Amino acid sequence: MGSIYGKIFQISTFGESHGAAVGVVVNGCPAGIEIDLDFIQAELDRRKPGQSKITTQRKEADSVEIVSGIFEGKSTGTPIAMLVWNGDQRSKDYSHIADQFRPSHADYTYFEKYGIRDYRGGGRSSARETVARVAAGALAKLVLNQIGVKIQAYVSQVGTLKVGSTDLKISDLSEAEKNAVRCPDPKLAQEMFDYIDQIRKQGDSVGGVISAIIEGCPAGLGEPVFDKLHAELGKAMLSINAVKGFEYGSGFDGVSLKGSQHNDLFVEKDGKIQTTTNFSGGIQGGISNGEPIYFRVAFKPTATIMQDQDSLNEKGEKVVVSGKGRHDPCVVPRAVPIVEAMAAIVILDFYLRNKIIKSSAL
Amino acid sequence: MGSIYGKIFQISTFGESHGAAVGVVVNGCPAGIEIDLDFIQAELDRRKPGQSKITTQRKEADSVEIVSGIFEGKSTGTPIAMLVWNGDQRSKDYSHIADQFRPSHADYTYFEKYGIRDYRGGGRSSARETVARVAAGALAKLVLNQIGVKIQAYVSQVGTLKVGSTDLKISDLSEAEKNAVRCPDPKLAQEMFDYIDQIRKQGDSVGGVISAIIEGCPAGLGEPVFDKLHAELGKAMLSINAVKGFEYGSGFDGVSLKGSQHNDLFVEKDGKIQTTTNFSGGIQGGISNGEPIYFRVAFKPTATIMQDQDSLNEKGEKVVVSGKGRHDPCVVPRAVPIVEAMAAIVILDFYLRNKIIKSSAL
Amino acid sequence: MGSIYGKIFQISTFGESHGAAVGVVVNGCPAGIEIDLDFIQAELDRRKPGQSKITTQRKEADSVEIVSGIFEGKSTGTPIAMLVWNGDQRSKDYSHIADQFRPSHADYTYFEKYGIRDYRGGGRSSARETVARVAAGALAKLVLNQIGVKIQAYVSQVGTLKVGSTDLKISDLSEAEKNAVRCPDPKLAQEMFDYIDQIRKQGDSVGGVISAIIEGCPAGLGEPVFDKLHAELGKAMLSINAVKGFEYGSGFDGVSLKGSQHNDLFVEKDGKIQTTTNFSGGIQGGISNGEPIYFRVAFKPTATIMQDQDSLNEKGEKVVVSGKGRHDPCVVPRAVPIVEAMAAIVILDFYLRNKIIKSSAL
Amino acid sequence: MGSIYGKIFQISTFGESHGAAVGVVVNGCPAGIEIDLDFIQAELDRRKPGQSKITTQRKEADSVEIVSGIFEGKSTGTPIAMLVWNGDQRSKDYSHIADQFRPSHADYTYFEKYGIRDYRGGGRSSARETVARVAAGALAKLVLNQIGVKIQAYVSQVGTLKVGSTDLKISDLSEAEKNAVRCPDPKLAQEMFDYIDQIRKQGDSVGGVISAIIEGCPAGLGEPVFDKLHAELGKAMLSINAVKGFEYGSGFDGVSLKGSQHNDLFVEKDGKIQTTTNFSGGIQGGISNGEPIYFRVAFKPTATIMQDQDSLNEKGEKVVVSGKGRHDPCVVPRAVPIVEAMAAIVILDFYLRNKIIKSSAL
Repeated sequence: MGSIYGKIFQISTFGESHGAAVGVVVNGCPAGIEIDLDFIQAELDRRKPGQSKITTQRKEADSVEIVSGIFEGKSTGTPIAMLVWNGDQRSKDYSHIADQFRPSHADYTYFEKYGIRDYRGGGRSSARETVARVAAGALAKLVLNQIGVKIQAYVSQVGTLKVGSTDLKISDLSEAEKNAVRCPDPKLAQEMFDYIDQIRKQGDSVGGVISAIIEGCPAGLGEPVFDKLHAELGKAMLSINAVKGFEYGSGFDGVSLKGSQHNDLFVEKDGKIQTTTNFSGGIQGGISNGEPIYFRVAFKPTATIMQDQDSLNEKGEKVVVSGKGRHDPCVVPRAVPIVEAMAAIVILDFYLRNKIIKSSAL
Repeated sequence: MGSIYGKIFQISTFGESHGAAVGVVVNGCPAGIEIDLDFIQAELDRRKPGQSKITTQRKEADSVEIVSGIFEGKSTGTPIAMLVWNGDQRSKDYSHIADQFRPSHADYTYFEKYGIRDYRGGGRSSARETVARVAAGALAKLVLNQIGVKIQAYVSQVGTLKVGSTDLKISDLSEAEKNAVRCPDPKLAQEMFDYIDQIRKQGDSVGGVISAIIEGCPAGLGEPVFDKLHAELGKAMLSINAVKGFEYGSGFDGVSLKGSQHNDLFVEKDGKIQTTTNFSGGIQGGISNGEPIYFRVAFKPTATIMQDQDSLNEKGEKVVVSGKGRHDPCVVPRAVPIVEAMAAIVILDFYLRNKIIKSSAL
Repeated sequence: MGSIYGKIFQISTFGESHGAAVGVVVNGCPAGIEIDLDFIQAELDRRKPGQSKITTQRKEADSVEIVSGIFEGKSTGTPIAMLVWNGDQRSKDYSHIADQFRPSHADYTYFEKYGIRDYRGGGRSSARETVARVAAGALAKLVLNQIGVKIQAYVSQVGTLKVGSTDLKISDLSEAEKNAVRCPDPKLAQEMFDYIDQIRKQGDSVGGVISAIIEGCPAGLGEPVFDKLHAELGKAMLSINAVKGFEYGSGFDGVSLKGSQHNDLFVEKDGKIQTTTNFSGGIQGGISNGEPIYFRVAFKPTATIMQDQDSLNEKGEKVVVSGKGRHDPCVVPRAVPIVEAMAAIVILDFYLRNKIIKSSAL
Repeated sequence: MGSIYGKIFQISTFGESHGAAVGVVVNGCPAGIEIDLDFIQAELDRRKPGQSKITTQRKEADSVEIVSGIFEGKSTGTPIAMLVWNGDQRSKDYSHIADQFRPSHADYTYFEKYGIRDYRGGGRSSARETVARVAAGALAKLVLNQIGVKIQAYVSQVGTLKVGSTDLKISDLSEAEKNAVRCPDPKLAQEMFDYIDQIRKQGDSVGGVISAIIEGCPAGLGEPVFDKLHAELGKAMLSINAVKGFEYGSGFDGVSLKGSQHNDLFVEKDGKIQTTTNFSGGIQGGISNGEPIYFRVAFKPTATIMQDQDSLNEKGEKVVVSGKGRHDPCVVPRAVPIVEAMAAIVILDFYLRNKIIKSSAL
């Protein structure tokens, strides 16, 4: 029941790591949108394994195929189903862990919940599912482009290596997509790269933080009291594999400020109501206020490591899980497009919901 | 559209700060539950204003009235509607800000979104709406009691004053409800109290963190891939007024750990599969694993301060907003039962959803 | 879980026949609508018992009270909660049937489903719940007025007495609200009245049919493939107490026609695309085509009769259920505003959903 | 937004008549169910074109492919995606009507709603979409088999030719699947066959009625007040292409009965509470009572006929639509498995929802 997301622009994903395909059905995409297949494929390529030596060496072509909802290059308003066939599935790589519970993976919990599990590569719990999210997110981005909303995410922390500046704009991120880590500071990116590579050689893994900026978002998006814009962004981010935390605007650091420091004063600039500061992170009372939206997402170290670990199997017997397979020592570089995709889906969904709020829209 | 929460145990709240009443309709409460009205009222009392000099001095009786769904003291499986009539409404206190946008409040965004707003006390954006959540949460707790799930939240940080220990159990929290701050460390509680009181005298405000622990939660709760247990907990917490961040388990600090440190190894203890450490925070792959669940919620400093602030009014003219009314200088002490209420609602909802997953349950 | 209806204009009803109140929370009513309380009350009065000697003699004031979502006479876009307190509850009238299963009532099925039931007046299964629907429907009508949609229902059959003409327009219905039966043909109305009165004197009951017409509905409403306009209208009507059937356009009679007779040819009239005939009932492929929408709803004879009937009690023992209380011998006259209310809710919901379909609406 | 159906056992269909594929994603299928692929394929074969000379002569292999949610022959509790690739697509057959509005088709309404339409074979409005429903329904039947629920539909009317008996049981239907019309009375089936064949030769079409029986359904299914069992069955049936009406139990005919005739008296038979008659159609107060459920579904004559018809094109110009292509002169024989599929989906959904109603289930 948990594989559907969104109320108006609604995505329904399916597929396992080593099944035939992963895919998504998108309901609620407005009719008449030009569907740029190359752009969708390019987004998938940003997520693809094997982009550098610090990402997994699995080979996945990840070619997207659209089987419905498009006619003569445009969306028709009917469900858009997209498929990515699974290619380089080395299912045998997993036979040795068929009945083992890998530490900090979802093996045990899936087994407890469902009583059955597809152990190959984590099955449904694998981050391979995010292929579907990126495809749907690309569609959302195509729509958002038309209304001037821009979303960009970047790696702001790997282990203890952190981007110093906390108030970047999208215009400051031009370098981010040029390096393998997706960090906007080229020098720091190199340090991060070297650190991840060193961790990789140790057969270990490390966590990181992805920051994201949304510019051009109109005021008014978000649906109090439960579907606040940041609450939905938070859920969307926390639903991504390996995420442990979410904060927006001043976040956890804002706790120690006083109200007199933290309040964002309203002023008029360029004939538009704006705020002098933006501790609110572009969201007040759960609704966008027109300022840039920014948030941070914490990713834990990858659970799969190339080291022996004590664990149990399905019978409760002690086993040693040995690390095999091809995995990312740090997930954040490849997770950047996933964060953007989920943000795009959330923003578009609220944008559409917002069209039917005022009587003047009748 | 955003005032309904939950899929099976579903709550629908209504009401404004200075309207006639706030209330909630609960759908999906199992039939046959004994409804302890005193307990529900006691939970509302924990949230009530005027509990000490560091909380707002508004007088609100907050007496709950149940108008449906109960027969001879038991739930009947039909919708349970609960009402709390608004009493001490000094609407006049707000006439001076009728057309002003208070900084870091929702005045501007509600106006932009709806084109109309009930300015009295923030209307729907007021934390008074959380009365309804606490009432519904109390109901959820009554059900959870029957299956042995315990939830307790406490204040772990005010400004920069922090509880040192990060791995508390519910048994360590016996002191929390005995002091006005709801901090389990009595000495620190006094420091926090004094600090908040000092801030109050300055006409200022300050933020804080609430930590929460859930014990006795069975393995298997949570619905991947989007409705992961922690994703839903995150959304529920982020939907509470003034919340800026959410993290569970190792959270943002876990980022700098290596996988070899962070992974929780499975062991058998007392004939039960457990983990040696609990960086996972009781949730793996979005599903509870039977270990204690713990998370932290960041609250910003209260936006209302007793100081003059520059702002704009609805016409875009410069105004000075002057602080009046009766407000909490720090929201966390009164937000503790709200955090618990939302956690109870989330856990119960997943508990019920989980009953229909396995074929063995047919 | 079944007490919420609609996707955008969403109503959540609560309350039992002999509880404290029945009510409804309406989410998704556009902001800025002038709320005409007198109109809402007038709609409730059309449904009220005691309107003539052929309706139940219960006395229910049915005064509506709005407790949220309205500010200075206008909707604010937040949930609108409406309450009608239960007045003339003669609960004692029901003590004799506390453990009896009345034939063709919901006593047995509620008991089987929930394991507990409020036996007083049928509890939640009572048609008293429709008070909440009429209140919400009145709100929907206020919005639909602004866009020129008109809905009128009328009694077209009682027992075997039938309105002859099958292609009435709203302009033909001027007499319907002037008689107690709500039949547009005054002479037939009198016959129906006399027949119902005779049935009443026999302590018996009889069924009827309500027909409804919707004019001014724009083309484009309805969401294939499952939420077709007529499918949702059908569900809404079938959810009303005592309804056994629904048909629209040519309905069951259309079955015996040939395609060459049944197809509605497109023509241009008054610069607008119209059809020469309207067997489609204003809906094609599940979407309104701009022609009048019409449908028929079958109501069974009231289950409560003033005669002794053999039955069982909760222990499975034979009992004789004796008819007491105050009931309608034929429900259709009072069900007319309920049919209109549900139709208004369905049409408004689709109208709002339709605002976000085309890219040109972005 | 309208392509998702069900709350727990939830199906999401996609695909157009002449797109690459039609398919369905099923969420909420319990884990651990043995998936009998042959059975699913056999159900699709019952719906397949070309079964006799009275059904369309299109050639569609309609081979189902499952791409997710199954592991080692069993459902895993994750989304099950099923695809049927479109084969014999003679898109050219439709080029002559690319801008024409075929009478009583969805061409005009889709164009009005979406501003764009896939005209080939009706696109999304084509009954080809029901392939997906039958596949999902087959899955539901596999689950229902385990709990003893049996569903069978049959053709009870074609034009004015009607099955005489109105109280058939599934045991009376043994002949239905043996003839091309799917009528349980072999002699009448032959008359129907001849009549449809004659209509076909005239280039015309005719309507029909499908009746359905559900046996073995436990008491307690259905969720008042809106999601009544018959209301949801009604919606599900009305969502099928060409359906104009739905009635259950006594239906429209019950209207003219008196309560004293229509009420079903409770009696104990074989240690079980049953009713002497079954005018209720197995449903009381919207909840199943354990008696057989039966209902009737009216289908209009096929809109496509092999005759010239006056119409308009997208520019509003007069055109003559000439009948081409390969179509069913009467849809009911092939719609029988579709009716069963939708009924199975509805019943299973309610069965699962019902598991979480009573406190004794906690």
